[in-house]
Amino acid sequence: MSKPVPLKPYRITDGAGFRLRNHDPADRRGVDAAAGEALLASGIERLAALQSKLFVEGRHALLVVLQAMDAAGKDGTIKHVMTGVNPQGVQVTAFKSPGPDSLAHDFLWRVHAAAPRRGMIGIFNRSHYEEVLICRVHPEMLEAQHLPDGSGSAAFWRQRLGDIANFEAYLGRQGTTIVKVFLHLSNAEQRRRFLARLETPKKLWKFSAADLRERERWDDYQDAYEAAIAATASKQAPWYVVPADHKWYAHLVVVEALIHALERLDMRVPELSAEETSRLADARKILESSD
Amino acid sequence: MSKPVPLKPYRITDGAGFRLRNHDPADRRGVDAAAGEALLASGIERLAALQSKLFVEGRHALLVVLQAMDAAGKDGTIKHVMTGVNPQGVQVTAFKSPGPDSLAHDFLWRVHAAAPRRGMIGIFNRSHYEEVLICRVHPEMLEAQHLPDGSGSAAFWRQRLGDIANFEAYLGRQGTTIVKVFLHLSNAEQRRRFLARLETPKKLWKFSAADLRERERWDDYQDAYEAAIAATASKQAPWYVVPADHKWYAHLVVVEALIHALERLDMRVPELSAEETSRLADARKILESSD
Repeated sequence: MSKPVPLKPYRITDGAGFRLRNHDPADRRGVDAAAGEALLASGIERLAALQSKLFVEGRHALLVVLQAMDAAGKDGTIKHVMTGVNPQGVQVTAFKSPGPDSLAHDFLWRVHAAAPRRGMIGIFNRSHYEEVLICRVHPEMLEAQHLPDGSGSAAFWRQRLGDIANFEAYLGRQGTTIVKVFLHLSNAEQRRRFLARLETPKKLWKFSAADLRERERWDDYQDAYEAAIAATASKQAPWYVVPADHKWYAHLVVVEALIHALERLDMRVPELSAEETSRLADARKILESSD
Repeated sequence: MSKPVPLKPYRITDGAGFRLRNHDPADRRGVDAAAGEALLASGIERLAALQSKLFVEGRHALLVVLQAMDAAGKDGTIKHVMTGVNPQGVQVTAFKSPGPDSLAHDFLWRVHAAAPRRGMIGIFNRSHYEEVLICRVHPEMLEAQHLPDGSGSAAFWRQRLGDIANFEAYLGRQGTTIVKVFLHLSNAEQRRRFLARLETPKKLWKFSAADLRERERWDDYQDAYEAAIAATASKQAPWYVVPADHKWYAHLVVVEALIHALERLDMRVPELSAEETSRLADARKILESSD
């Protein structure tokens, strides 16, 4: 069987000099789709075993942040990577436009509330990063947030990105490992997928006119992603810039990224004390001698 | 009528060189209890008017963090300062020992969830500061938190205090003004109040044997408070070291501190646009011409 896909080319732990254009959305390292299928199956198996250990140990949490342009495959990635993992240990939160309760609080309020508890894998389908992505492309959205300084100046975004970085570093110290995934799609491939949605009746529901309007702001979004990744990539909370023009390849990279994060945890399933062992032996005797 | 009590001697906005022993718990600036009563009544009136403005404007929130040794008068302060303010705009959260859901998350999780929404005054009766107070005096409590580094070293506490300071600065940028109150009680006065509880049948319920055990750690608590105040006092989230040997004087200082914080907000009750004004004029005509 082939080797798992490499992670190093995609993992960003230091944003200095980061440029999105140095990353090829169509990269697949010579792997073909057939080999990819076998690799994904074995990856999911390893992931499921690690999730089980995480759950039993109950000391660490894993938070996966999933961000991408429309049609890059966020939903499909969750489906293909996490199906096969015990759903009792996985909690997916989709962040849509904030409602009135969320807008009445600071922007991390609803995000923090959804942070995974120890033992769990939490998946954010979109996240607090929308606050420095869609809000940065459409700064008029800041008005609804009633901020003391809602200027949307360069200093404002730097500060907001700094607040996100502080929040993530804090979560790390509290035992939550964070893996951030940007499904990196090319402009041409998004166009193809939008057209496919329009041509396929059962995919039509996925398309909205708003998608097209956002597509017109493509370059602004790429700039916002680049700035966000550069400002918040760290060893404790790395970004993965995942080539997403081939969906199956993106799934492979994501599954390996989660495995990598879980393998680095110092997970120890608690050992029994002598006293506990002897108590269990007693329980066994009682059960055996009863009818 | 006498002037309001001064705030400057009690407000700490920069922790450098802060020493608790430079603050006299019995200070009352020559005010007597009778004058204090009139001052409190007028203070509450001003506070109620400001709260009303805060609520109508709906752009800012005020978070009051109340910390103290046992018997310093936290509950009484909430009762005496906030009675007379519209309870619809006030939300008190008492933080007891964290339960299993809280312990399964990072220590700010339950605190952040209780942060006041815009327009509200949130009062924390105890708070996230217990994480650097009782946990620092009893570092064995850290075990229940299952941290990657739960060492309780000097660096650990510095980092934890830094995380708290970052969190508070972030909330400030999001529109939440924070006022932190330490009701500063003398050791001798705590002893008197404990004895009073034991001698008065209807106060007996307030006393527990644990209170006495914590009293034995008095100096450790004072050190932990001093370190916490020094590390987290800032212009945006000041500490007030409130003399608390005279309960009525503590109430006066707290009411003035809240007034001071609210007065510094740039609160503007929204003005109507020409269009809105004309729409209201239309509504008036319809109402007047109907039966």
